[in-house]
Amino acid sequence: MSTDDVATVRVRLTVAYDGTGFHGFAPNEGVATVGGTLADALSRVLGAPIELTCAGRTDTGVHGWGQVVSFDAPADRVAEPEALVDLQHAVNHLCLPAIVVRDAAVAPPDFDARFSARSRVYRYTVLNRPVPDPFLARTAWHVERPLDLSLLRLACDPLIGEHEFSSFCRAKKVKPRDRRPDDVLASLTRRVISARWDDLGDDVLRFEIEANAFCHQMVRSIVGTLVEVGFGRRTAGEVSAILGARDRQAAGQLAPPRGLCLWAVRY
Amino acid sequence: MSTDDVATVRVRLTVAYDGTGFHGFAPNEGVATVGGTLADALSRVLGAPIELTCAGRTDTGVHGWGQVVSFDAPADRVAEPEALVDLQHAVNHLCLPAIVVRDAAVAPPDFDARFSARSRVYRYTVLNRPVPDPFLARTAWHVERPLDLSLLRLACDPLIGEHEFSSFCRAKKVKPRDRRPDDVLASLTRRVISARWDDLGDDVLRFEIEANAFCHQMVRSIVGTLVEVGFGRRTAGEVSAILGARDRQAAGQLAPPRGLCLWAVRY
Repeated sequence: MSTDDVATVRVRLTVAYDGTGFHGFAPNEGVATVGGTLADALSRVLGAPIELTCAGRTDTGVHGWGQVVSFDAPADRVAEPEALVDLQHAVNHLCLPAIVVRDAAVAPPDFDARFSARSRVYRYTVLNRPVPDPFLARTAWHVERPLDLSLLRLACDPLIGEHEFSSFCRAKKVKPRDRRPDDVLASLTRRVISARWDDLGDDVLRFEIEANAFCHQMVRSIVGTLVEVGFGRRTAGEVSAILGARDRQAAGQLAPPRGLCLWAVRY
Repeated sequence: MSTDDVATVRVRLTVAYDGTGFHGFAPNEGVATVGGTLADALSRVLGAPIELTCAGRTDTGVHGWGQVVSFDAPADRVAEPEALVDLQHAVNHLCLPAIVVRDAAVAPPDFDARFSARSRVYRYTVLNRPVPDPFLARTAWHVERPLDLSLLRLACDPLIGEHEFSSFCRAKKVKPRDRRPDDVLASLTRRVISARWDDLGDDVLRFEIEANAFCHQMVRSIVGTLVEVGFGRRTAGEVSAILGARDRQAAGQLAPPRGLCLWAVRY
């Protein structure tokens, strides 16, 4: 049964997941993904094949708290007032314990989880002390050497505003004959609305960044670089220079995925 | 090499662990246990077989934050001032990510993690709302139906003080010919120093109980019963009657292990 043949209703879900055991969000044949698991559960409960659009395609091991997805459901399956509560409950039961639909609502027909989004907020958590914590092992990067919070904060300033972020993005694989440098550069321009570090106590530091959109591995590239500033290995001023270099080699190492979480999406 | 043949030093460790993947603390042939994993790592680093004594033998799936263990280390391996820091670091590296030695110190020769303990503090975490949370799936009991916090708190009062806790303990397996009822009852008397519920916000409720010692499955039996009071299924007054019944069948169901954590041990 194709959804082309029946009346459909656009549905919007807010989804949280522990990404530890998944090969990222995007459905991928032969491996467990968050989106694939969720789409399978929705298809089973709704009795029709469901295709998801998501606000942010998180990578392997990256978590979600406020991931948003949209899809079309057969209208007759979501007509009853309690239908979406029942859908949420049934899907959560199938996806336990790593994926949880936090909210389910009917959306306007033109709502698109990806293209309607005005901004995304990511959070990155660092445990900064010599001794690790087994309860943060899945959700924080354990950094043993002391970080200087004031340096971390200074290093955020150059990121704010519209910049071309190719220094902080994984290079796209483009065949030489298809390479058009101007296009690639244009597509890596992003507007960072806010970027800050919070001290949550108990040696936990959290980076939060909001932007209209993010390039591939952008937050992890930024965190890897800021941490070098926090060690005193680079200056906050170098962040501007790295942005200007438009060269992935100029930035620091990639921070591990486990500390990263797609926290919220704004529409 | 037996530790009988060499000078030894008594060492005390404070250990945190995510118990999800372990068959409890106590070493047990053929299965992964917290104590077995830790003893193997200590034996490897110290180059001698190490036998551990622990303050509380936590069950399968139960966590630890302030578990305390004691053992004898060959004196020449812990003589240097930095030796215990190095030992902690090496053992943590071998045990990552689920077990972490939070502290290592030399203890008096007569220190015994189990028999020197004056009291143990356990915490039990409940997520009380219809929708689960993937990040609490390993460390909290998800209770969908609303709990009345004031009833939960009232139900704690009868627990305080010295009581015979056989209603809240897993029955010991004793052969009929060895059964001596008076002995069994005597051995299940415990002194509860404090018991309380805290509202941590975000629908998380936490029970904390301190006692001189605990019987097997005592905290989980108590929590299973208190939750029935919180639902309004039993009255707070019934907790006294259950204690007086001295019958495991009188109490509520066992709460699942994942919400439980050995929080601290006091000496």
